[in-house]
Amino acid sequence: MAEETTAGETYTVGVDFGTLSGRAVVVRVRDGAELASAEHAYPHAVLDRTLPDGTRLPPDWALQVPSDYLDVLRTAVPEALARAGVRPEQVIGVGTDFTACTVLPTLDDGTPLCDLPGLVDRPHAYVKLWRHHAAQGQADRINALAAELKEPWLERYGGKISSEWEFAKALQVLEEDPEIYRRTERWLEAADWIVWRLCGTYVRNACTAGYKGQYQNGLYPSREYLAALNPDFADFVTGKLEHPIGQLGECAGRLTAEAAAWTGLPEGIAVCVGNVDAHVTAPAAAVEPGQMVAIMGTSTCHVMSSDQYGTVPGMCGVVDGGILPGAWGYEAGQSGVGDIFAWFVRTGFPAEYAAKAEALGQNAHEYLTGLAAGQRVGEHGLIALDWHSGNRSVLVDHDLSGVVVGQTLSTRPEDVYRALLEATAFGTRTIIDAFEAAEVPVRELIIAGGLTKNALLMQIYADVTRRPLSIIGSTQGPALGAAMHAAVAAGAYPGIRAAAGAMGKVHRRVHLPDLGRAAAYDRLYAEYRLLHDYFGRGANDVMHRLRRIRAEASA
Amino acid sequence: MAEETTAGETYTVGVDFGTLSGRAVVVRVRDGAELASAEHAYPHAVLDRTLPDGTRLPPDWALQVPSDYLDVLRTAVPEALARAGVRPEQVIGVGTDFTACTVLPTLDDGTPLCDLPGLVDRPHAYVKLWRHHAAQGQADRINALAAELKEPWLERYGGKISSEWEFAKALQVLEEDPEIYRRTERWLEAADWIVWRLCGTYVRNACTAGYKGQYQNGLYPSREYLAALNPDFADFVTGKLEHPIGQLGECAGRLTAEAAAWTGLPEGIAVCVGNVDAHVTAPAAAVEPGQMVAIMGTSTCHVMSSDQYGTVPGMCGVVDGGILPGAWGYEAGQSGVGDIFAWFVRTGFPAEYAAKAEALGQNAHEYLTGLAAGQRVGEHGLIALDWHSGNRSVLVDHDLSGVVVGQTLSTRPEDVYRALLEATAFGTRTIIDAFEAAEVPVRELIIAGGLTKNALLMQIYADVTRRPLSIIGSTQGPALGAAMHAAVAAGAYPGIRAAAGAMGKVHRRVHLPDLGRAAAYDRLYAEYRLLHDYFGRGANDVMHRLRRIRAEASA
Repeated sequence: MAEETTAGETYTVGVDFGTLSGRAVVVRVRDGAELASAEHAYPHAVLDRTLPDGTRLPPDWALQVPSDYLDVLRTAVPEALARAGVRPEQVIGVGTDFTACTVLPTLDDGTPLCDLPGLVDRPHAYVKLWRHHAAQGQADRINALAAELKEPWLERYGGKISSEWEFAKALQVLEEDPEIYRRTERWLEAADWIVWRLCGTYVRNACTAGYKGQYQNGLYPSREYLAALNPDFADFVTGKLEHPIGQLGECAGRLTAEAAAWTGLPEGIAVCVGNVDAHVTAPAAAVEPGQMVAIMGTSTCHVMSSDQYGTVPGMCGVVDGGILPGAWGYEAGQSGVGDIFAWFVRTGFPAEYAAKAEALGQNAHEYLTGLAAGQRVGEHGLIALDWHSGNRSVLVDHDLSGVVVGQTLSTRPEDVYRALLEATAFGTRTIIDAFEAAEVPVRELIIAGGLTKNALLMQIYADVTRRPLSIIGSTQGPALGAAMHAAVAAGAYPGIRAAAGAMGKVHRRVHLPDLGRAAAYDRLYAEYRLLHDYFGRGANDVMHRLRRIRAEASA
Repeated sequence: MAEETTAGETYTVGVDFGTLSGRAVVVRVRDGAELASAEHAYPHAVLDRTLPDGTRLPPDWALQVPSDYLDVLRTAVPEALARAGVRPEQVIGVGTDFTACTVLPTLDDGTPLCDLPGLVDRPHAYVKLWRHHAAQGQADRINALAAELKEPWLERYGGKISSEWEFAKALQVLEEDPEIYRRTERWLEAADWIVWRLCGTYVRNACTAGYKGQYQNGLYPSREYLAALNPDFADFVTGKLEHPIGQLGECAGRLTAEAAAWTGLPEGIAVCVGNVDAHVTAPAAAVEPGQMVAIMGTSTCHVMSSDQYGTVPGMCGVVDGGILPGAWGYEAGQSGVGDIFAWFVRTGFPAEYAAKAEALGQNAHEYLTGLAAGQRVGEHGLIALDWHSGNRSVLVDHDLSGVVVGQTLSTRPEDVYRALLEATAFGTRTIIDAFEAAEVPVRELIIAGGLTKNALLMQIYADVTRRPLSIIGSTQGPALGAAMHAAVAAGAYPGIRAAAGAMGKVHRRVHLPDLGRAAAYDRLYAEYRLLHDYFGRGANDVMHRLRRIRAEASA
């Protein structure tokens, strides 16, 4: 497993905090070689039905337990180090990345409120995971008021901020559990909380501050605007959010003795400023401006640097230097991708298929993909909308939901599965089209994340988007990117572009579009867009009404 | 099993030819008691992918093999007779009912073309089952031309005839396999073919002639109209279709020696004129005018007698005396009901659920129904359209297809299952609303067919339609109805109303609507109708386009 190590080599450790687990990778600073990795699943995974004590959660909630993140530092980091065969003193820095916007309420010293006596049964005391979608009402008001008051930051977010973000989630706490809101001394990203646990210093990273915290040109939304949203929200920025900003790749502080004991890393090494899983991946793929990186896992995040500034409707945000210094960093996303495929397999994979898959030694995804791969474009007669987890871009509406049109008595599981794969590709094309319409060109797609291993899915994306697909050269893109930023923080490289040149990896043009299939997909994409606009832009608000009816029936 | 028989008792045998099997019932003439029954599954079932020799069929085809029907006479009838413990000489008549419009091409002597040497590999030589849906193009032209020429029969069919019917299916034969069309000496309903096999006389029954053969006021569509459809179709009525009509409950002829040998019944007993499974069931439920009978199985057929004449848009047809003599007989229908639930269980019932159902000793339907029954109205957040097998009423369009709106990552199989149950109830309400809007009142629903055993489904229908549900007192409604018509044909009763009074059975008002749930369903029904009109009335013709794309991709 471990390569032969050389006395003079130095290494960094990248730790990627995902939705269900954390992964640590040991990376050689010289060339980005990944020596070993280890993964640790969060013991509490995602709390979406009940709290650990059994307290029931309403629909659309998604919480986490912060101590699960520390477990990753205690287990995955030492394990990766041991597997790599690297001596701890050869490690010169540690970097992290996190899902976002994943936020938690803490005391002034960073103690999570859910760890306080008497608050274990209070849902709002826990970490709100990125895919907590119960603050749509707050997001709607945030957007409506910002549009009305012509708030200058709004266009930086494509005209709408998401219910997933810091302000919407905090406003939900205030309005649903005022006592928890009152006791919240800091409202911070888990990305910054974990760095604080490592180095003892709270530094707010520029990436989440910009993309998830509406921090633009040195300003947050104004006190007057916040007061107009809710008088008790007026002091949210000044009282709970505002904090010095650290740039990506900067050193946030030095590894504490406590964190050194957890991780087995040397006390005092550089700890890099926090970052986001998607954004940190772009340098890992040695990305250039105009290349859109799609990190495809449970959800997909699209990040792209560009010299062009554009107001892209429905993008998550554009932040100056948000990905690479000196360029506009764009983010967009699809809130459900692999999550939708997993949901389908969990709920729609018949016993007969399970038996056949087992006989072939395949998992459900491999089996369905194999069946679906034999089809011609359009043969299944279906169109789906990929909104089972809402729509992040370009509609920015997490109260939307999934649709399948065209089922007959001959429709088979592999037909629906393929239609769902295609729906997510149409979702990506919708985003690309929005960028191009705003004159921010997208020349090429670079794909990272766990879904890259599905060759059918990749080919569908190439055909649907009519673009060559390059694939990141690492199966641990975020962790590699975090380790690269750690190398910059430790001073091994002058900046992330230099680190990317030496340590980044990409396989160029692995999947090329087929013109015949691309033409066939154009017709299906036109149907997708028609349904997209009908259900997503108010012509028929049935999805919102169904959600209200569901909430009333569940109450 | 058998009740004690009395020397003086007389009996009739009813034989119900369904989609997948035939069932024979031995019935006491005096009171309609069902002494015994037997079922025989068609060896070839439904041919929808290939002919018996492996010849591939295009999408939307559904064929059958006529010799399968004779097998029912040879096996199920003697078996039922033996179980009943009835002496053959006590049986005074035999009656049949059939799915419709199920049609076949034969020689002048009734020999099916598919039985001729050299034609076994010709799809058009076989029986076209009611749910053969590949003649939509022909039906569209039939309807468009009839509307243009203001054909007088058109309003009797709600403004549109179905692709399932005699003319559309015959025109498809002509246009796709002219040689088979040329060799077709008679184009006849399987309902009449089986009676011909029993008594040696071809009598065209008034029910299918009226509902499926556009025979109204003694006239078929004119030669000029047919010639305008296709010059080679001009002689269709005179050359292949026209034949003396027999009224329901009349004696078509006497059982031949050959058929007596098949069935074990006495040669020379009365053989009743053919009838349709749905229509024959109404008297079995002792139905009165204004009571709509819904025969709910793989599909649902709605039949109702009324003193009121109305032009109901999208009904299948209205025929003078089509159900009861002296009343207008209305038919409407939903082309997929139990078929859709079965499709869902076949394709969307996960292994984990199958294991739990097995542990409880339940089948998939019972298990899903049990889970769904605990939900409040609207709790699943879904709306479905029940068009997986097309829409018979009120849109009369078999190129429509299914839709599910509202899926999230929390959606479970029981949620979709319940949404599909509800969708079929909304479909029935749509039909009832069309009748009432045409001033043909529907006072009550009487339900027959296999789905009556699902109490949740029945309650949903009561709540959605806001009407009390009575349930037919027989699990073999069509066969009982056929036996009652046989009793009339044998002269035991002066007419079907008298027979219905003595032999019919119904449990009155078994399921009553709950006003709270009915109000909740009103909101969901409004959503159903919105989607119904959007996808079904041309606002978004995506379903037709998807079907064309599918056909091209499959070609």
